[in-house]
Amino acid sequence: MPDLTKPVLLTGASGALGRQLTRALAAEGFSLRLTDILPFPDKLPANARFVKADLADGVAILREAEGVSSILHFGGVSTDLTFENVLGPNIRGLYHIYEAARREGARVVFASSNHSIGFHERTEKLDHDCDMRPDSYYGLSKAYGELMGRMYFDKHGIESVFLRIGSCFPEPVDARMLSTWLSYADLCRLVSACIRAPKVDCSVIWGASANSRGFWGKDARAKIGWQPEDSADGFAGQLGGKVSDNLVTERYQGGIYCAAEYSRPSPSPKDIFGA
Amino acid sequence: MPDLTKPVLLTGASGALGRQLTRALAAEGFSLRLTDILPFPDKLPANARFVKADLADGVAILREAEGVSSILHFGGVSTDLTFENVLGPNIRGLYHIYEAARREGARVVFASSNHSIGFHERTEKLDHDCDMRPDSYYGLSKAYGELMGRMYFDKHGIESVFLRIGSCFPEPVDARMLSTWLSYADLCRLVSACIRAPKVDCSVIWGASANSRGFWGKDARAKIGWQPEDSADGFAGQLGGKVSDNLVTERYQGGIYCAAEYSRPSPSPKDIFGA
Amino acid sequence: MPDLTKPVLLTGASGALGRQLTRALAAEGFSLRLTDILPFPDKLPANARFVKADLADGVAILREAEGVSSILHFGGVSTDLTFENVLGPNIRGLYHIYEAARREGARVVFASSNHSIGFHERTEKLDHDCDMRPDSYYGLSKAYGELMGRMYFDKHGIESVFLRIGSCFPEPVDARMLSTWLSYADLCRLVSACIRAPKVDCSVIWGASANSRGFWGKDARAKIGWQPEDSADGFAGQLGGKVSDNLVTERYQGGIYCAAEYSRPSPSPKDIFGA
Amino acid sequence: MPDLTKPVLLTGASGALGRQLTRALAAEGFSLRLTDILPFPDKLPANARFVKADLADGVAILREAEGVSSILHFGGVSTDLTFENVLGPNIRGLYHIYEAARREGARVVFASSNHSIGFHERTEKLDHDCDMRPDSYYGLSKAYGELMGRMYFDKHGIESVFLRIGSCFPEPVDARMLSTWLSYADLCRLVSACIRAPKVDCSVIWGASANSRGFWGKDARAKIGWQPEDSADGFAGQLGGKVSDNLVTERYQGGIYCAAEYSRPSPSPKDIFGA
Amino acid sequence: MPDLTKPVLLTGASGALGRQLTRALAAEGFSLRLTDILPFPDKLPANARFVKADLADGVAILREAEGVSSILHFGGVSTDLTFENVLGPNIRGLYHIYEAARREGARVVFASSNHSIGFHERTEKLDHDCDMRPDSYYGLSKAYGELMGRMYFDKHGIESVFLRIGSCFPEPVDARMLSTWLSYADLCRLVSACIRAPKVDCSVIWGASANSRGFWGKDARAKIGWQPEDSADGFAGQLGGKVSDNLVTERYQGGIYCAAEYSRPSPSPKDIFGA
Amino acid sequence: MPDLTKPVLLTGASGALGRQLTRALAAEGFSLRLTDILPFPDKLPANARFVKADLADGVAILREAEGVSSILHFGGVSTDLTFENVLGPNIRGLYHIYEAARREGARVVFASSNHSIGFHERTEKLDHDCDMRPDSYYGLSKAYGELMGRMYFDKHGIESVFLRIGSCFPEPVDARMLSTWLSYADLCRLVSACIRAPKVDCSVIWGASANSRGFWGKDARAKIGWQPEDSADGFAGQLGGKVSDNLVTERYQGGIYCAAEYSRPSPSPKDIFGA
Repeated sequence: MPDLTKPVLLTGASGALGRQLTRALAAEGFSLRLTDILPFPDKLPANARFVKADLADGVAILREAEGVSSILHFGGVSTDLTFENVLGPNIRGLYHIYEAARREGARVVFASSNHSIGFHERTEKLDHDCDMRPDSYYGLSKAYGELMGRMYFDKHGIESVFLRIGSCFPEPVDARMLSTWLSYADLCRLVSACIRAPKVDCSVIWGASANSRGFWGKDARAKIGWQPEDSADGFAGQLGGKVSDNLVTERYQGGIYCAAEYSRPSPSPKDIFGA
Repeated sequence: MPDLTKPVLLTGASGALGRQLTRALAAEGFSLRLTDILPFPDKLPANARFVKADLADGVAILREAEGVSSILHFGGVSTDLTFENVLGPNIRGLYHIYEAARREGARVVFASSNHSIGFHERTEKLDHDCDMRPDSYYGLSKAYGELMGRMYFDKHGIESVFLRIGSCFPEPVDARMLSTWLSYADLCRLVSACIRAPKVDCSVIWGASANSRGFWGKDARAKIGWQPEDSADGFAGQLGGKVSDNLVTERYQGGIYCAAEYSRPSPSPKDIFGA
Repeated sequence: MPDLTKPVLLTGASGALGRQLTRALAAEGFSLRLTDILPFPDKLPANARFVKADLADGVAILREAEGVSSILHFGGVSTDLTFENVLGPNIRGLYHIYEAARREGARVVFASSNHSIGFHERTEKLDHDCDMRPDSYYGLSKAYGELMGRMYFDKHGIESVFLRIGSCFPEPVDARMLSTWLSYADLCRLVSACIRAPKVDCSVIWGASANSRGFWGKDARAKIGWQPEDSADGFAGQLGGKVSDNLVTERYQGGIYCAAEYSRPSPSPKDIFGA
Repeated sequence: MPDLTKPVLLTGASGALGRQLTRALAAEGFSLRLTDILPFPDKLPANARFVKADLADGVAILREAEGVSSILHFGGVSTDLTFENVLGPNIRGLYHIYEAARREGARVVFASSNHSIGFHERTEKLDHDCDMRPDSYYGLSKAYGELMGRMYFDKHGIESVFLRIGSCFPEPVDARMLSTWLSYADLCRLVSACIRAPKVDCSVIWGASANSRGFWGKDARAKIGWQPEDSADGFAGQLGGKVSDNLVTERYQGGIYCAAEYSRPSPSPKDIFGA
Repeated sequence: MPDLTKPVLLTGASGALGRQLTRALAAEGFSLRLTDILPFPDKLPANARFVKADLADGVAILREAEGVSSILHFGGVSTDLTFENVLGPNIRGLYHIYEAARREGARVVFASSNHSIGFHERTEKLDHDCDMRPDSYYGLSKAYGELMGRMYFDKHGIESVFLRIGSCFPEPVDARMLSTWLSYADLCRLVSACIRAPKVDCSVIWGASANSRGFWGKDARAKIGWQPEDSADGFAGQLGGKVSDNLVTERYQGGIYCAAEYSRPSPSPKDIFGA
Repeated sequence: MPDLTKPVLLTGASGALGRQLTRALAAEGFSLRLTDILPFPDKLPANARFVKADLADGVAILREAEGVSSILHFGGVSTDLTFENVLGPNIRGLYHIYEAARREGARVVFASSNHSIGFHERTEKLDHDCDMRPDSYYGLSKAYGELMGRMYFDKHGIESVFLRIGSCFPEPVDARMLSTWLSYADLCRLVSACIRAPKVDCSVIWGASANSRGFWGKDARAKIGWQPEDSADGFAGQLGGKVSDNLVTERYQGGIYCAAEYSRPSPSPKDIFGA
């Protein structure tokens, strides 16, 4: 049972999602610790403090987390980059986040991504216990974070919610987002629910609004106490069709991340752990 | 279909398993490229060359792999260490191995570990498609490697066999190894089969001999064309009982790796992705 | 014989010369891979892709070079800086460029510099086989690159053209440039010729337009199939006289690079390898 | 004119040549500053002090050089290794050596190598002003050092002798050394002469004894005041024939360094700066 | 006795105080070497040169200091940051400054800070030989610099003046500055006096104008030949009262640096080296 | 009031003093956490665990300290080395130790050294509140540690005892040790007293046995509850005279550390903060 009187740490506070969450959580009355490697671009809410810190500086991150009840981990790189650019902020950064959570007995709400499962085909309806099939070094770092969260749960009882976020933007801007869009408002309600839920164990949430074209099925939303309220469906008229003529982009859930540098010699069915 | 006239690259050649493999594969007539961060302690077989290299030096690793048909990745740290000590050789090293494999169109035979799934209970009989539940930073690095292999298979068609090795020693030395032991001879036959199999896709093999007390079930051995020939069963008389009185050690497949620094507040059942 | 249907890699694409080359080579119909540590400031031509990468990240550079016929190496620092600032991008970067060329069997067109021979006196008319006499850490890195190119030619047959560029600017802006100026148009024609020439072996080109006051003589231009078409001569009226009153600046081909931190106790003739 | 009452700095003092030089120069009465990254294995002579230091630690090297008249630079890696292993000790180390020499107005005696010119054919008789044609990353680092020495001579008047050492061993052990052998006694006399010569400018010495089968011709020995006194000729009987059947090894002056990883597609004549 | 015809090195030249000093010292006719990690934002005075350099690059700093009579060390971070951000520029940087001073026999004028003694109470009147009681990682780095200066004085006779600067701004902006303010004009006169004084040994100066509310007493100003001419007293009307309601801020000389992350369990008197 | 049922962390456990302390404290019944960068060479006592860790790995050190009541900081380099070799283990290491202590509310017993005050003359009788006058980079790191301890006491109430150890060896081996010797038994009793004392505030102890020739006077031993029981006096017969003929060695308390590289131009009296 989280102690909601304690502050909440938000990494990546200066990013697009971090700024939304800062505003929403401050409005709910949470005391916030904000951190990012870039300056915070907005006026700081009351009850918030901001510290500029690098996720790779473990001792600084551990200090920033002292006394918090939850860590909302939205920091690190958020698009696909070269391996070396992902390694420091995302892989090493996750270790510091989980060590901080262990020290504090805090809950982690981790901004994972659909790119941790991007190589499932769009025709599959995935539940939360599907295999991970990352589609990029970025997606691999998210999958790594989920596995680290499992280990800290198994070994230390640290709770996590992995938000496999689809496409979180002001509004959907291409056909794929009719399936994957998560509205800012749904995101903020989701994160608030993750902080407040009495018990989350080690759970996955599909981070998408109530889109009738969605790729994803069962998850832990009942336990968290969240339901999306928005939907991409109203944008269907203006966003019909395909994102591109690239067959790989259109076939897999990860879209263009799957197609980037794709070099499979044949399009024949993949066989992972098959008969 | 691998071209068996091309050389095979073996990382970690100077370790215990690497030395066994060097001897066995040379005897089978393979041309070998050996590499390790430590000098090779034995007489080099004919048709083998050794280069001292750090898995973190990507350009050197890529060069060492030129022209090979398979990469047997047994390098990196092989016990649980601090996160920082695992990160360089294991995480960054895997990236270099898979980039090399992609350049060469080579197959990867990756010495993964039971510690990538160590937090499953011993009462479970695991098949190759079970969830990964790593028990240590070491186990996490192995799970990361398997996910990287999946991505290179999905995106580039690079084949992998993940050997989830149990306990590979001259003979079993404690009660747990009655379940997990892999004899040196079985290991060498397994790796040889992985190199020679016409097609391996992206497969898991449970790296254990034919132990009647084994934890593990279905895997890709039929596709690989391998069956263990040895068994720990003959050691049961002298190794009965438990490894320790620690309940965590005895409950989980990963044994003492699970118990190390275990701090779960309660022994109640874990709930990952449960109802 | 280069395969002109394959793409061409250009490093330093976001610099002044890189942008000129991008425009000119795209107009000639080449497929371009562009890279730089800074973003590309212009609209990308069709048939061009840009990847932000650090020349010190070898595995990324090797990947960027896959499948190219030529590498135009215009990246790295391009003025004299402290040794430490030159070492990474220029020295380590050259190694990655030549490893990439070896992997691809590609030709290297290397933006060397007159500063690799800057300590020859202006009264000498230099041919392509003159001694290297660098005038700065920057010039040393260019000389190092030429020697590396020779080694890759001798050992691996990798062809190179070393462009010992004088002063490549929109137009000459001081008296020395009446000797050293290379027009943008001449540069673009030169690089195009280097890419297209059937055979270049390991050659030097003096990178200057047809300036009657030029310092430089024989080189491989006949083999490359290039003649400068522009000349600084028309600017002689407005740029007469000296660059400065510094005797060192005026005496040596490298100009102010030679004079920077010059501390020779006496102006007596230098004796390198003399009788 | 060197001040012979001042101490002499010797880097690489713990290596085979360094130990010979330490003994010989101490016996001549020189005050010695010895440094190496490894401990000095012998009893320190009177008038010698040893400091363990890394050539990559510039401030420490500059301090060690305070007050010396000459720097004998025999440190760094002395065989061919991967590029990354050569870069730090040899390339960065040279910068620290030359900065130290500039600060002290000291003379540098640099243990260069025949591998800076190894790709000349054995049929050529080379003089000191021949082109550099390195045969390895190691040879490249030596060539770089010579060019750096030229720049410090041209710009700051710092004198250097580049010893292009052939094969310096207790006695010749293969056929190539009938051409390249330098006896320990000849080396020690040579280095002593380099320290004592009134004026050395920027000179090359071919570091070989008086071998009648030698590859090398004119150099600065008259200016230095040195003549070899030993010869490999007496070993010709027992060392006849070839080093190997490898044509590259036998054709080029650099021997097996040239042959290592040689991949030239055709054995046709090389053309560097040809007509 | 300093040789005032030699140039003066100023680090941190691009900062607020550095720019004031540059203008004032140039006007006095000093020849200036300016350096900073950021570009110099103003027009360079005659007789000044600027080099962009990192205080962590020791060989570059040593070179910049060649031939100077004094080093005015105003570089490094100047507010409290995380330990890792202070370590490089301030701790390592100080070593390079003192090594440079030793090489040149130069005097060091070090911009220390009141934060090296910030945990003394405001009711104490401190003399120059008071205990150091730093209040932050920043203050610790300044105290470390003073101790390093003592060692170089004791061991090598290098003279230092440690300026324990209070608050150096155009004018005082809060109540505490009525005690700690140092006017730009007083700073410039102070530094000039430090350069010119015949002998400074190893001295402390309290860097404050003639503020009647000042915290500080005896120091070496008579030896330096400096008296402040400005005073914060005229601002007392508009700046009365307290900086904050925080008792720690108001009790200690270091002000908000003391209060930042203050976590002493009880406000009882501290006991350092007490009876 | 320390909780003596909690474990005690000892860094530098594999060193000479660390091994003595391990044995003695285990015999007293303390539960021990041992750490060092080198393996522990002895049999581990019951109730002790050893982890190999680098003091520069902050997150690992913080983890090792979880739940301890005291940290005995005997790790880091323990003789004078180059600055760069001292910086990592000693300066950065101290930060990690104090952050760990703050997290745990633990007491720090810090193996400081007489070299933090080594430039006081032997004729002075020093009390605990004397000025620090370090004699080496090593001594500077110890002084830095004491200042860091003061800051953590002032700001966070973390208690420290700084043991300014003289010469801790099995027995005195030169004349200076007649003043500075600390017996192993006295050390072990001292450290035990530091752990057990109800309250230590921020204190200095002179780490010497009851030597009648001692340099040092008042300190906090009454508060700690410790008196030395051994004495160097019995060795005076065999160790009379001087350590060396070097006047600096003999004049200052730090002995040969003061004399190393001493270059003061004149032996005139030093003037730090004098009239």
